Amino acid sequence: MNKDMKLLVKKLGVNAKNSFSQMLDASTLQKNQALSDLSEEIYKNSERIILANEMDILQAERDGFDEAFIDRLTIDQKVIDSMRSGLSALINLPDPVGKIDDLREQPSGIMVGSMRVPIGVVLIIYESRPNVTIDAAALCLKSGNAVILRGGSESLNSNTELVKLCKKVLKKNALPQNAIQIVPKTDRSIVGKLIEYSEMIDLIIPRGGKSLIEKISKDALIPVIKHLDGICHVYIDDDADLVKATNITLNSKTQRLATCNTLETLLISEKISKRILPKLALMLMKKNVELRVCEKSKEIIKALSFEYSSAAKIATARDWKTEYLSNILSIKIVTNIEAAIKHISKYGSQHTDSIITENHHKAMLFLRKVDSASVMVNASTRFADGFQYGLGAEIGISTNKLHARGPVGLEGLTSVKWIVLGNGQIRV
Amino acid sequence: MNKDMKLLVKKLGVNAKNSFSQMLDASTLQKNQALSDLSEEIYKNSERIILANEMDILQAERDGFDEAFIDRLTIDQKVIDSMRSGLSALINLPDPVGKIDDLREQPSGIMVGSMRVPIGVVLIIYESRPNVTIDAAALCLKSGNAVILRGGSESLNSNTELVKLCKKVLKKNALPQNAIQIVPKTDRSIVGKLIEYSEMIDLIIPRGGKSLIEKISKDALIPVIKHLDGICHVYIDDDADLVKATNITLNSKTQRLATCNTLETLLISEKISKRILPKLALMLMKKNVELRVCEKSKEIIKALSFEYSSAAKIATARDWKTEYLSNILSIKIVTNIEAAIKHISKYGSQHTDSIITENHHKAMLFLRKVDSASVMVNASTRFADGFQYGLGAEIGISTNKLHARGPVGLEGLTSVKWIVLGNGQIRV
Repeated sequence: MNKDMKLLVKKLGVNAKNSFSQMLDASTLQKNQALSDLSEEIYKNSERIILANEMDILQAERDGFDEAFIDRLTIDQKVIDSMRSGLSALINLPDPVGKIDDLREQPSGIMVGSMRVPIGVVLIIYESRPNVTIDAAALCLKSGNAVILRGGSESLNSNTELVKLCKKVLKKNALPQNAIQIVPKTDRSIVGKLIEYSEMIDLIIPRGGKSLIEKISKDALIPVIKHLDGICHVYIDDDADLVKATNITLNSKTQRLATCNTLETLLISEKISKRILPKLALMLMKKNVELRVCEKSKEIIKALSFEYSSAAKIATARDWKTEYLSNILSIKIVTNIEAAIKHISKYGSQHTDSIITENHHKAMLFLRKVDSASVMVNASTRFADGFQYGLGAEIGISTNKLHARGPVGLEGLTSVKWIVLGNGQIRV
Repeated sequence: MNKDMKLLVKKLGVNAKNSFSQMLDASTLQKNQALSDLSEEIYKNSERIILANEMDILQAERDGFDEAFIDRLTIDQKVIDSMRSGLSALINLPDPVGKIDDLREQPSGIMVGSMRVPIGVVLIIYESRPNVTIDAAALCLKSGNAVILRGGSESLNSNTELVKLCKKVLKKNALPQNAIQIVPKTDRSIVGKLIEYSEMIDLIIPRGGKSLIEKISKDALIPVIKHLDGICHVYIDDDADLVKATNITLNSKTQRLATCNTLETLLISEKISKRILPKLALMLMKKNVELRVCEKSKEIIKALSFEYSSAAKIATARDWKTEYLSNILSIKIVTNIEAAIKHISKYGSQHTDSIITENHHKAMLFLRKVDSASVMVNASTRFADGFQYGLGAEIGISTNKLHARGPVGLEGLTSVKWIVLGNGQIRV
């Protein structure tokens, strides 16, 4: 790494840290006004933004990127509108910062409580999706953090244009311009250096492929909010309502195939399996879902016509730990709820798991014993989402166990500190 | 590392993880009964415990350890009593596990809330202080975690005896015996292996010297709750009540000299400095505190008799970032509250800082802008302590910014998960 690069990393870090200090007493009004001005600026400059984006698209096309990539890279009027409606939603969310909780008098006479505070400097590393630039910048602004954005290099023109507008509205509202920064150069070694810069950066949020996230988590000297696998389960208990079980299974698997909260393994209680599996398997296969099933399931599915019964393959050990992210579902018959919980604990990824049952005791047992970020009763796994949970915004979904777990909204971008209000008290 | 060691590490990890699964639905009653039985067992076996401890002491004396070390290693009747009263206190604390918060209906009809859950497997690494064995084991048990204890090798006989009693009461209460394990061998390479074992261990809490904690944090592949520096400040504002300012400064510095929440740097607003500094400096020096002061302070202290005025040395840049942990105090005169906050932000360790002021606006500004684990108004920094904060128990003090910050009690040993209660809802 050459000297210029080192200087650049240092400058980004120091600028961000200084801006964070100034952000610490930014008022809710100031922050909301900046968000509202940003929406206005995006509207007024939409032509400029789209023009900059077209430069990125042209280059990406020349470089031979595929259609899906170009699609994610594209800013059209619809993307502009969705950026702006995201900003409106964020303005309407309560400001988490400064909230004081549990302020209680202690025997010594001091009042002790907690105050919610921004985390500090957040580094967000993401792919060439320029809509994330506004999303992430706005979430960090509202939560009082300073952010360093490192989007995919193919979106650099678009991002530069967008961040220019961010800086403009920060300035206009007497907020530090460097509260939102973009990594200007595209040299990958910069990321390697930034994720080690623990003196200046407090948190890393990588968004993208699993290998990128794993690499960052391994190399970083700073806490990382990470999202790894989503091997989600539905367990159909023998006390399940069969209509609910069918609807929820179909919805969890097929409402969208490639999201992290999509169902990957269906567990069915042995006692009920003959009643539900033939019909359910048929419905799934008619919806084009490939089934990989345990021996017992295969036996039951034999009841179906040859066309379908022969289509269900026998699952291998590998299937239970695979996140297909496509139209494949593994199915296993288990003896009871305890076996289901054991299977989830062994093969699951602690993301999202749901039980279908009308039995209160078993519902509570599942809630208690399944150690996942989201545990559900009689609901589709597809609900594991910041908007569905009422967070109003989402910076990502975390598979960490500490700090932020599951869908991460504004509060996940904050921490707390203890506050002590005294009147001259000393310790005796 | 030989094969036996590797097997041992694996066994510890797998045992702990399996125990944790069983702990997930341990009832409050079960856990409290185990704690109560443990107190009883410690009482009944106090002679055995003290005998085992005497073996450790003899060896440590033979190995030439100093008196302070032996003192920390010793279990006498007083230590036994204090272990038992700690257990009683813990039994009386509410169980954090299973607590459901913010359960709210969302537009889709699902109810979404959070449930407090244990973290999983906790590795605690500490020095040869066998009282920590019971403290840590009991806190982890009450919070539903499985714990692997790695105390200093000089206390191995004592710890083995104590953990034997822990396992006995776990078994008696139908709880998994491996929820509390001790690292049996004293080979240091085991620690190096354990702190990388992220498949089985969820959290590391090192207690001990800074170099040990830094090394573990650097090498670990698992989150670490760490305690680094405690460079604590008191800022005497120009709107301070001088009696409160004097009492709080003296108490923060001298009530105990070597604790992490002891005052290390005193900041005084210039406007009030001539009124308070001469008297305060004299009182401090009479209490045997060595002063290292800025030029302006030195000028003011000149008013004192030669004996005292000459004793105050000029501080160097190094003093502002030193945690003395002894009878030394650095003093700096600052222009105003903003300069004080800037100094704290530049030189502090984000541990504990207190402002002395009667001005409400400045008190609030300090609370908001000082980015430390504990921020105080008109109170001694010595209050930064789990018991003083009403936590009822303390596993340590964290200087982390995420998850647990400041004094860490039972709740710091837990995390949350999302729970979703539906009635057949699917996403549309």
